[in-house]
Amino acid sequence: MMIRTASALAGAVALGLGAALVASAQAPPAGPSYTAKGQLQYPADYRRWVYLSSGLDMSYRPGPPMPGMSQFDNVFVDPAAYDAFLKTGTWPDKTVMVLEARRGEQNGSINKAGRFQTDRVGVEVHLKDTARFKASDGFAGGWAFVAFDGEGPGQLLPTTEACYACHQAHAAVDTTFVQFYPTLKPVAAAKGTFSAAYLAEEAAAKPKP
Amino acid sequence: MMIRTASALAGAVALGLGAALVASAQAPPAGPSYTAKGQLQYPADYRRWVYLSSGLDMSYRPGPPMPGMSQFDNVFVDPAAYDAFLKTGTWPDKTVMVLEARRGEQNGSINKAGRFQTDRVGVEVHLKDTARFKASDGFAGGWAFVAFDGEGPGQLLPTTEACYACHQAHAAVDTTFVQFYPTLKPVAAAKGTFSAAYLAEEAAAKPKP
Repeated sequence: MMIRTASALAGAVALGLGAALVASAQAPPAGPSYTAKGQLQYPADYRRWVYLSSGLDMSYRPGPPMPGMSQFDNVFVDPAAYDAFLKTGTWPDKTVMVLEARRGEQNGSINKAGRFQTDRVGVEVHLKDTARFKASDGFAGGWAFVAFDGEGPGQLLPTTEACYACHQAHAAVDTTFVQFYPTLKPVAAAKGTFSAAYLAEEAAAKPKP
Repeated sequence: MMIRTASALAGAVALGLGAALVASAQAPPAGPSYTAKGQLQYPADYRRWVYLSSGLDMSYRPGPPMPGMSQFDNVFVDPAAYDAFLKTGTWPDKTVMVLEARRGEQNGSINKAGRFQTDRVGVEVHLKDTARFKASDGFAGGWAFVAFDGEGPGQLLPTTEACYACHQAHAAVDTTFVQFYPTLKPVAAAKGTFSAAYLAEEAAAKPKP
């Protein structure tokens, strides 16, 4: 009986090992991947990445951004970058963040108020790849924005798009809006990684004593 | 040179193996875990689980649920249960779902409209454990609700709480509100796993021809 148990245990360990090797072999490569033409591949498994937060109808100008319709924005980040952020308070090279937009509906099933999420209406990526996106070309910190229309390769947005200037001017950590990610904001505060621009903006917004 | 490369590769494989074994040894046990007194342990790593969706101020009665304040509800599920759902269109035994409530704020940083998430205001778990929660005791399908006040062990909600009856009457799949989870609803539709009660309710809600 003792031998049989030991043998079963050895079998289980061997099986575990095999499964781990298979999992390791099948795991997608860490970080962004590109086509031969240099376009960013669609991050097909982002719904299994780490969720950072959602906003509904957020706008940096007063009033609803799209009168008559509602939209949720969900943000995900690749797990390796999330782990690195928890340790350091900032993003490692090769970080990939996904912004997924979905319609916000009010009436459906038994719901009568507020909003719930339905169809996806867009996917945009914000990624840090310092070897590919040079600060000298206008990609501050090695960050670039890539838009996806469907699940094919993405379209790099030129650095003249407003998202670049806005993120550089107002985002709390390394051109990312960590001030809107409730599990990461306290990490950045503890590690002292808020940008000087963000700290100045927050100080200016405080009521004078 | 060839030998050195082969040797380095062998070293990398061995390292990979070791890392996989360590990861496997450190991974938390799959499914729910309980204290010696039978209370559900707080699911400490749920923010690394699979995100299902968020709602803002959803209510099953007309009008805002909490006048003057906004609340997001984020739903997460353990990765093993998510994988099983993608294959089968329903939940396996030991599924653990987490409902996390967070304040929805409008004014902060550069935001001027809509809502973004800030402080966590509650965590509730819905879990399926047929050995522990018997249908004969009122836990339909082996599902129970557990409320958490802080990160200690949870408090099992009695089956007289309204959540049980409402989920049994209106939830689309196995007493869970899959109709509000946009990545899972089409899976359930394809697999034909919607509940009879949900299908009847949807049919009744359609305008008559």
